[in-house]
Amino acid sequence: MSFVTATYLVPGGLDLHKKAEGIALGLTVGSWTDLPALEQAQLKKHKGEVIATNDGTPKATITIRYPAVNFTPDIPAILTTIFGKLSLDGEIKLVDIAFDDALAKQFPGPQFGVDGIRELIGVHDRPLVMSIFKGMIGKGLDEFETQLDAQARGGVDLVKDDEILFDNPLTPFEERVKRGKHILDKVEQETGRRVLYAVNLSGRTFELRDKARKAVKLGASALLFNVFAYGLDTLQALAEDPEINVPIMAHPAVSGALTASPDYGIANSVLLGKLLRIAGADLVLFPSPYGSVALPKEETDAIALALTEPTVHRAAYPVPSAGIHPGLVPHLVRDFGEISVINAGGGIHGHPDGSAAGATAFRQAVDAVLDDTSLEDAALQKAELAAAIKLWGHPL
Amino acid sequence: MSFVTATYLVPGGLDLHKKAEGIALGLTVGSWTDLPALEQAQLKKHKGEVIATNDGTPKATITIRYPAVNFTPDIPAILTTIFGKLSLDGEIKLVDIAFDDALAKQFPGPQFGVDGIRELIGVHDRPLVMSIFKGMIGKGLDEFETQLDAQARGGVDLVKDDEILFDNPLTPFEERVKRGKHILDKVEQETGRRVLYAVNLSGRTFELRDKARKAVKLGASALLFNVFAYGLDTLQALAEDPEINVPIMAHPAVSGALTASPDYGIANSVLLGKLLRIAGADLVLFPSPYGSVALPKEETDAIALALTEPTVHRAAYPVPSAGIHPGLVPHLVRDFGEISVINAGGGIHGHPDGSAAGATAFRQAVDAVLDDTSLEDAALQKAELAAAIKLWGHPL
Ligand SMILES: [Mg+2]
Ligand SMILES: [Mg+2]
Repeated sequence: MSFVTATYLVPGGLDLHKKAEGIALGLTVGSWTDLPALEQAQLKKHKGEVIATNDGTPKATITIRYPAVNFTPDIPAILTTIFGKLSLDGEIKLVDIAFDDALAKQFPGPQFGVDGIRELIGVHDRPLVMSIFKGMIGKGLDEFETQLDAQARGGVDLVKDDEILFDNPLTPFEERVKRGKHILDKVEQETGRRVLYAVNLSGRTFELRDKARKAVKLGASALLFNVFAYGLDTLQALAEDPEINVPIMAHPAVSGALTASPDYGIANSVLLGKLLRIAGADLVLFPSPYGSVALPKEETDAIALALTEPTVHRAAYPVPSAGIHPGLVPHLVRDFGEISVINAGGGIHGHPDGSAAGATAFRQAVDAVLDDTSLEDAALQKAELAAAIKLWGHPL
Repeated sequence: MSFVTATYLVPGGLDLHKKAEGIALGLTVGSWTDLPALEQAQLKKHKGEVIATNDGTPKATITIRYPAVNFTPDIPAILTTIFGKLSLDGEIKLVDIAFDDALAKQFPGPQFGVDGIRELIGVHDRPLVMSIFKGMIGKGLDEFETQLDAQARGGVDLVKDDEILFDNPLTPFEERVKRGKHILDKVEQETGRRVLYAVNLSGRTFELRDKARKAVKLGASALLFNVFAYGLDTLQALAEDPEINVPIMAHPAVSGALTASPDYGIANSVLLGKLLRIAGADLVLFPSPYGSVALPKEETDAIALALTEPTVHRAAYPVPSAGIHPGLVPHLVRDFGEISVINAGGGIHGHPDGSAAGATAFRQAVDAVLDDTSLEDAALQKAELAAAIKLWGHPL
């Protein structure tokens, strides 16, 4: 028998066991004690079970196990079961989920994951560095090419579209893919470094699969996807498609509507961690604990753990984002280790000497940290890093 | 020029205009005052505009207008623009949206809506009555047929699956459709009343369209859909499909994760009201203001208004649900009027004389209210209604 186990945060001081029993029955067989023995025997394997209740007033947790026989092995059915009607039932937050291995294996997980992406890029011994295009709305393909070239030559491993850049007449999706491939091929020929470009896969749901397949044929090296504007199952379908054989980067857009409240919704570690990994995200962006748009460090730790801890699936890359500049690299490496992607927008394009220098400064900071050299010492030799630290500082 | 206008609830007492400018620029052209005049001219039509700020400390609102030229006319692109990154930006709730008519017309809205469903059922002068199957998990097709027959004969206009009943070996999706049609055809022949059965459309996203088309071919008369376990755009694709020519009933499962917090997420009137209607839901279930799983009446009023106020789209049926019994019918009619569906599960199956009597009691209550007869007076003549009121009471 397979199960999904879900843990909920609820107000403390209630009759927890009664509440838990109500959930376990209400979301499975409906009722129990008043059923005839024959019906109980028939329904036993469908019945939800209360696994634990813990009152730590003012908050308490309830853990319930739902038999997988009640749903089809897809995320919409599971979400509807464990947090469908229940999401509407007063103060309650879904704070953990667990699939047993047999059930988990029915989901793809990352098709590349950390090892696959390292293989693609040819980097195995340091955190990767990623940059984001700056202000592309209203700009054309020349600007696109200039920015991509500068970022790639500066030394980043990945470049991503901004999540608000959709298919548009100035920089059409397919043109971005084709020109992106051309530029990155040239950079590889000249520098030996393979850089991936994650183009924003957008548009109508039922067109996404064909659009992604076409992009891959045209030379796309990665996809950016606003999962939560669509649905986790759509991500899964893209991840499972054998023709869409490039890494998929999940953007957290809209996810704050589900995760931000302490009392309602779904925990970041569940939504951006466990569910995105199960559904097949290869890289997961989330707010870093440092910037202006920040998450508490316990939450970013929990996301990173959910993406990388041993499970039946490959590990996905944590990509702590927002407010990142070279002075934060020691913090990023300390907090997220080598299995992470250092991602910057303003911290690259805002560099006094331009985007390429901004990218170089990040690579210099990473090298310094891995060499156990302080940023100050490294900056004595590295002009780009020195300029970055002069501008943004170097918090201890 | 077309626009989406979005209003956000944020903490009061900030420098609101600065915050609003930051949002309007950050989610469109990125920056403005430091741009050369030539670039400003080029980017002008892409720039977000602050329409209003209102400080009513402790809370304040910000209204921003986003040019539609920045996104493709689909809900994922719009959500990503107006509440993508922004959903992660501290305490903020999306409390209103508006599409101008030109933009709104690029969305289907309900394909049947209130008038179309009245036409299908042949009822034009009273609220409709709907019932839900009881505890079908673990049960077989005999139980399905028995329950459907009792509910339909009792006098309801619509019957819906429970949202947690997925495709399963005991009551397979296609069998439910075929047997449902057979039973409802018989009821129509014998009583002259047309009853719709909304089968739960579930499974993998990319299979839904074919599954729904097949269901319609097999005689499905309506579809239940857990929109928020998938995505609004998937609902839209189902609504737009000419072969899926039956009403679609949107279930609010999982929506509480987005709507329940007063400070974060998306308002019910936006998510269950405006967006479901634009995307094409014909009927929208939401928690009634009366039951144990209840919404504040201001919120249910706002949902019902968003579903029915004059727009470029057909009106969708508000379906206030949960905790409904015949004694509440006067309240439902007072609060939601004739353009609503009265929806009950326990209030039908829990009737002392069974589900058919439970359905009949609801119809008797509706007739009494429309005749301006009190339920007490009506109950003198109507045994089923009398038994229901005896059991559940009749709150004033
Ligand atoms: Mg961005
Ligand atoms: Mg239900």
